[in-house]
Amino acid sequence: MSTVDTLPGVEFLGNATPFVGRIQEIITVIRLFDDFELREIEMLARYMRCYRAAPGVEVIREGESGDFMLLVLDGGVEVVKQDARGLPQVIATVGPGKTLGEMSMIDGEPRFSSCVALGTLEFALLDRASLSHFIADEPRLGAKLLIELLMLLNQRLRSVSGQLMTCREMRHPRIRY
Amino acid sequence: MSTVDTLPGVEFLGNATPFVGRIQEIITVIRLFDDFELREIEMLARYMRCYRAAPGVEVIREGESGDFMLLVLDGGVEVVKQDARGLPQVIATVGPGKTLGEMSMIDGEPRFSSCVALGTLEFALLDRASLSHFIADEPRLGAKLLIELLMLLNQRLRSVSGQLMTCREMRHPRIRY
Repeated sequence: MSTVDTLPGVEFLGNATPFVGRIQEIITVIRLFDDFELREIEMLARYMRCYRAAPGVEVIREGESGDFMLLVLDGGVEVVKQDARGLPQVIATVGPGKTLGEMSMIDGEPRFSSCVALGTLEFALLDRASLSHFIADEPRLGAKLLIELLMLLNQRLRSVSGQLMTCREMRHPRIRY
Repeated sequence: MSTVDTLPGVEFLGNATPFVGRIQEIITVIRLFDDFELREIEMLARYMRCYRAAPGVEVIREGESGDFMLLVLDGGVEVVKQDARGLPQVIATVGPGKTLGEMSMIDGEPRFSSCVALGTLEFALLDRASLSHFIADEPRLGAKLLIELLMLLNQRLRSVSGQLMTCREMRHPRIRY
């Protein structure tokens, strides 16, 4: 069981199979699972569990260990990170179809930021153990999921690297004579 | 064939099988392939090709499309990116055991930066078509390689995101009363 199971304000909704329709509906707006067929989503859904969280619940807490990723099904999430002074900064707000927490699911390192439910939040959860079973049971489909995750992280890495370049240039504008 | 095959100053050394020993030697210092056994590296090496590049050869060019990643076997590489003014900035220097170009191999987007040989450079190359064949032929081992790539991108994403946070805080220091 994942740590969300013991969080106050979080309700377990069962495995993700009944949510396959909803998952397929929202994947039209995201890259992850882009080229998954309905049958493949159904197979993956057997390895995921669904939850409902009350408004304000911190489903992921910065600095804690965590072994799962979330797929937002309904509602929104505020992504918050402490700055160098320990003050919380909202770094993103995400809605249905977005995934959260992939980094820690993959590498087991502490959470980079916190995720707080904005209003009632429904999400599907995939943890590392389930991912391992999925890959062992369905290696070809597992590889497809891993490639989708690579595409996602890649996209973020390109975006963040670009922002870092811009930020550094603005800090140290080069004087050209 | 990859674009490196047609680059002046680049010599094709054959498939990577004869380099398995060298690859195993250098992987002790890197995370990628960390938990690959010799037999598994041998299997992967069949899908890779090796090259030698003369000093100064730009084996990867920023902005170009590219479908391969490199594993540096011998020598060093300067990673260069143009800033907003079009001036080349050295953003990293890497040596044996480091991989380059994974992002474009995965997503097919233009190269984020250029890679220039510092001295004579030997590298093993894996392109997208070979990766696909490897995954199709050896799905379990393919999944293992994809997880290693995920770990690597993850690590970079954490590092670059942390640097971006710091950079932004330095640009906009918050005044506390």
